[in-house]
Amino acid sequence: MRATVIHGAGDVRVENVPDPKIQLPTDAVVRVLRTCICGSDLWPYGSMPESETGERIGHEFLGVVDDTGSEISGLQNGDLVLAPFVWADNTCDFCGEGLQTSCRHGGMWGVGDVDGAQAEAVRVPQAQGTLVKLPVGADSELLPSLLTLSDVFSTGHHAAVQAGVGAGSAVTVIGDGAVGLSAVLAAKRLGAEQVLLMGRHTERTNLGREFGATDVVPERGDEGVARARELAGGDGTRTVLECIGTKPALETAFGAVRDGGVVSRVGAPQYAEGPIGFDVFFRNITLTGGVAPARAYIEQLLPDVLESRIQPGRVFDRTAGLDEVPDGYRAMADREALKVLVHP
Amino acid sequence: MRATVIHGAGDVRVENVPDPKIQLPTDAVVRVLRTCICGSDLWPYGSMPESETGERIGHEFLGVVDDTGSEISGLQNGDLVLAPFVWADNTCDFCGEGLQTSCRHGGMWGVGDVDGAQAEAVRVPQAQGTLVKLPVGADSELLPSLLTLSDVFSTGHHAAVQAGVGAGSAVTVIGDGAVGLSAVLAAKRLGAEQVLLMGRHTERTNLGREFGATDVVPERGDEGVARARELAGGDGTRTVLECIGTKPALETAFGAVRDGGVVSRVGAPQYAEGPIGFDVFFRNITLTGGVAPARAYIEQLLPDVLESRIQPGRVFDRTAGLDEVPDGYRAMADREALKVLVHP
Repeated sequence: MRATVIHGAGDVRVENVPDPKIQLPTDAVVRVLRTCICGSDLWPYGSMPESETGERIGHEFLGVVDDTGSEISGLQNGDLVLAPFVWADNTCDFCGEGLQTSCRHGGMWGVGDVDGAQAEAVRVPQAQGTLVKLPVGADSELLPSLLTLSDVFSTGHHAAVQAGVGAGSAVTVIGDGAVGLSAVLAAKRLGAEQVLLMGRHTERTNLGREFGATDVVPERGDEGVARARELAGGDGTRTVLECIGTKPALETAFGAVRDGGVVSRVGAPQYAEGPIGFDVFFRNITLTGGVAPARAYIEQLLPDVLESRIQPGRVFDRTAGLDEVPDGYRAMADREALKVLVHP
Repeated sequence: MRATVIHGAGDVRVENVPDPKIQLPTDAVVRVLRTCICGSDLWPYGSMPESETGERIGHEFLGVVDDTGSEISGLQNGDLVLAPFVWADNTCDFCGEGLQTSCRHGGMWGVGDVDGAQAEAVRVPQAQGTLVKLPVGADSELLPSLLTLSDVFSTGHHAAVQAGVGAGSAVTVIGDGAVGLSAVLAAKRLGAEQVLLMGRHTERTNLGREFGATDVVPERGDEGVARARELAGGDGTRTVLECIGTKPALETAFGAVRDGGVVSRVGAPQYAEGPIGFDVFFRNITLTGGVAPARAYIEQLLPDVLESRIQPGRVFDRTAGLDEVPDGYRAMADREALKVLVHP
């Protein structure tokens, strides 16, 4: 079959790889109907050292069950299923707490001998715990929005949940990428009243406004912080959702949050150390967030997607076949595309 | 009058200074009955650049009202009062939220023209909001424990509150200084079931055990983390209270906390950047805490002290007159003394 393999910075290829097969009785094989490229895929695309063998990549997909191991019950060939971006048994104590990203028997896609999702098919470890059956057909118009529950919308939701966003909240969202826009939508869905979106790409911030942003701050750095604080009555909002992952973005987040408030970060940190010194301490700012346990959220977000109350799939602004995936990476890296949906 | 002035690292002097006077109608003057030396005073004692004029120092005190400005009501000469370690109007919106450390009209002792507390008397700005009347006499045996509400016990309490410690909690406390021991007592008071105290000074950890520590971990670094995790069932406790303020202590805290857990820090950070990179992110660890709004806690902690249900004043293991304050600094820096109580 065909699958995406990254060989280094700027070097994404679609190659022939062996067909996935059941290796463990807890595996399933899923034929991929939709996958996509994540903003976090752009980090290795920007900096991965050259590798001759390369690594499978992609961690968001939905598809059709093609085979199941002997210990799988409740899933049958032909079922349409969604996978969260971290696989997990969904039975251990961490999973029971809703922290499937720390599952005792789980892991990441595209690591070691685990398949990446930008491919025609994927072997799914711990399939019984990982996969969620979708009550729609393979031709549903909802597939793009359903796919966002795998990662990007669940990640925006996690940012808002961890920050404690609720009815009447004032929220600042840092970043107009797909995660930032998802965080806007998630905050709005949870009842936020004021949602400041910090971003300067008008097409994206326009979608942000449709998702619920009440104000847009195109300025960056100190100027952006000053503007965001001003829009929030002078002191900043009580919650700030940091959806980029760079140190400057985190600095902006700490600048824009009200004393005693919460910065919730969901952009994968591109720093080993961050600015949490005396100022953040003296102002009693909490830093929370992390990698989103999407598996914990899929069922609760599903009804709003199925009934079209929210349309998180609008973050996809380009569609590609599998062979066009390398160009999709380029387009996202060049900011030509916000997020690329892939039909393998 | 006599007051403590710090002129640089290792150079603390008791000098003659002008008597404090009412400068603003919101001021009071308090004659100091008890003050003390704080672990955080040791940071300038360790590293302050030389200064000819020096700076007043000390931020914990209780005493007797000696004079009041024209806008003060509810306080009279002769009243015994306690001051929190940040002064505040206690009426602004931040104060109303219990964040008096961010008061719009408040500030720190010993900064600019504001007096330090290691002195015979102190001018108290925003006295009406800052001072809390104490229902005991000047000869009360409770004065040491009451004084801890000014900072050290309130700070330990803040660590525990911000971490969400409650009935049945498992808690790791990093540091066997006076703040760490106060955090042990505060966690126990809030109902914690398991309290691991990381510290290696037996006299201090013994007091920690009396305060409620169920286990003591004398090892440091990776070895200490491994031992703490093991004592907490292998995964670490859900809450870790970081009571030192150094980067290694924060690293230990992140090492010792369970995935999805909370590190609450109350040691003043001696770092501009801290280790909050991918590992902390992937494990969904929250970093909270900060400078304790002692003013918010004094009234609620007071009954337990007045009725001797807790004795946080046991952290004082040495008593000094004002002229002995320089030697008190030396003794604390040399770890001869845990915390020095001063009778001016």
